[in-house]
Amino acid sequence: MGLDYRVRCCPDGLVTDRRRRIKVLDCTIRDGGICNDWAFSPELVQRTFQALTQAGLEYMEVGYLTSPGQFDRDKVGPWKFCTKEDLDGVVTSGRMKLSAMVDIGRIDLADIPRADDSVLDVVRIATYAHQMDEALKLLDRCQEQGFETFMNVMAVSSLSPEEVDLFLKRLAVSGVDNVALVDSFGALFPYHVRYLVHKYMNYLGEDIKVGVHLHNNQQQAFANSITAIDEGVDFVDATIHGMGRGAGNCPLELLLFYLDNPRYDVRPVLDMVDEFADMRDGLRWGYHLPYAITGYYNVHPRAGIDRMRREDRYECREMYEKLSPRLDAASKAG
Amino acid sequence: MGLDYRVRCCPDGLVTDRRRRIKVLDCTIRDGGICNDWAFSPELVQRTFQALTQAGLEYMEVGYLTSPGQFDRDKVGPWKFCTKEDLDGVVTSGRMKLSAMVDIGRIDLADIPRADDSVLDVVRIATYAHQMDEALKLLDRCQEQGFETFMNVMAVSSLSPEEVDLFLKRLAVSGVDNVALVDSFGALFPYHVRYLVHKYMNYLGEDIKVGVHLHNNQQQAFANSITAIDEGVDFVDATIHGMGRGAGNCPLELLLFYLDNPRYDVRPVLDMVDEFADMRDGLRWGYHLPYAITGYYNVHPRAGIDRMRREDRYECREMYEKLSPRLDAASKAG
Repeated sequence: MGLDYRVRCCPDGLVTDRRRRIKVLDCTIRDGGICNDWAFSPELVQRTFQALTQAGLEYMEVGYLTSPGQFDRDKVGPWKFCTKEDLDGVVTSGRMKLSAMVDIGRIDLADIPRADDSVLDVVRIATYAHQMDEALKLLDRCQEQGFETFMNVMAVSSLSPEEVDLFLKRLAVSGVDNVALVDSFGALFPYHVRYLVHKYMNYLGEDIKVGVHLHNNQQQAFANSITAIDEGVDFVDATIHGMGRGAGNCPLELLLFYLDNPRYDVRPVLDMVDEFADMRDGLRWGYHLPYAITGYYNVHPRAGIDRMRREDRYECREMYEKLSPRLDAASKAG
Repeated sequence: MGLDYRVRCCPDGLVTDRRRRIKVLDCTIRDGGICNDWAFSPELVQRTFQALTQAGLEYMEVGYLTSPGQFDRDKVGPWKFCTKEDLDGVVTSGRMKLSAMVDIGRIDLADIPRADDSVLDVVRIATYAHQMDEALKLLDRCQEQGFETFMNVMAVSSLSPEEVDLFLKRLAVSGVDNVALVDSFGALFPYHVRYLVHKYMNYLGEDIKVGVHLHNNQQQAFANSITAIDEGVDFVDATIHGMGRGAGNCPLELLLFYLDNPRYDVRPVLDMVDEFADMRDGLRWGYHLPYAITGYYNVHPRAGIDRMRREDRYECREMYEKLSPRLDAASKAG
């Protein structure tokens, strides 16, 4: 195949070992659900679960846990709730661990179930750095209830290095099992990832695993995942066909090809991609200029999402110019 | 913006300098033309030319030079021919240099025009390594006719390192001005690019510029371009919105965002992207699983293109399995 120089150019000979111990978390239903308001049929989620199990994945994130009244079941699908009733008969706890995400402010401590009473193994807390007090309360509660705990601190690209240090120091003594570097805006390049992964690993020590959750606004989600693996992370998030908000995520199929590990069988995932590719035509996640612009400007993709809803031209030049002075003003203010 | 750690994590402090001296070659009309048989209207090519000029690009590749009778004007558009008549009134020689590509076997030496009689400044020779004798004859002729000369040796990922050394040694004494590392199959990852760029630069010496022409099958075209820039290449190829065969190329807009150089103005390119985005919906270049599979297997994208033409499901699992034993047989034979 001519790619035998692959083995000659590993940065330090450790890459193979690093790839070997990586774990993969699929968050298609949870993060991809942002594209279709979690309106996946239970049958599709069941088949996704089966495919990921057969593929040999370690973790599947099936949706969100939310308190009653937070969202309307007429407007969003069951995977925004993940009650016992929603999950029963669709997914089962087994070799592949099941995760649900919680957002600060969207769930009361009293509504975190007991791990023993749930098919869920993991609760993953999504928080902004400035919500860390609340996030740590939620973390304590999830630990009490017997869950493995993950913490996703979002929008890290909008923080100063000192602000990152600050939350990492708190997480280092929190008892959390896993912390993910989250590139919410798709703003990072491999050299940022390298810098930040080192920081996360150094501050969090030996006992806390480090993962990455990366977005594809600038076509860097998979490349940044490779960088993170080279630098020694323990977990990588991915979604089938890259399904996810805006430009989407690291495509699971590419990641499994790359890892080239007999522990994984990519073929059940390929079957699912055929189906998700049809969905993509309608839901339009993936590389589009409006998302590239928000990624470049390091801002939330909502301006890009608005732009994509226009019937006519996206007028990206206008969007680009509009974002530019706003940032100038913000930097002057800051 | 929170990305101030950008400056703290440059591999060796040289990245800024390397970015500063990079040159960009747009090959939208030439390589993107593979998607629509070069059926761009002269008016669109003219506007593309104007946009690229305003954007400050150094090179634009406007199509192919071919001998009369090689292609049928009823089947392919004017940019497969690039005669004086085709180019007149559409593009003009100026600050931005104009290039045309020639394929081995598609043009007679006698049909290479005089540079003085043409708006073209550059002839770029596309060749496989095994056609190097013919490529060097073509090169001599282009030099005699007064052109700046580029050489694209295709499908390098299918060669052994020793085969790469061999053609580089010949090119090092050929008088060629620029040699591009070409990832025809979209099979390379950044560590391959790093290894190969070093090799190209070491073998070709100080006087020959090195460029990259990268495909996006595994979503690595832009990431590989960044790697190549970090390693010190002189040229990067890109196309508007990544237009190109199969999964396409490095998107020009992302590259210009990244380079962040006041010499370039990305805004005229953004106007063009709005238009090319509409074309993409019909022509379907970009990330699709069939191209990811050919990239992974390091083979020509034609199997992927066939698959994309199917009306129903692509049945990618079948494609994946079909390619797998074929390669096994080939490796056994080789």
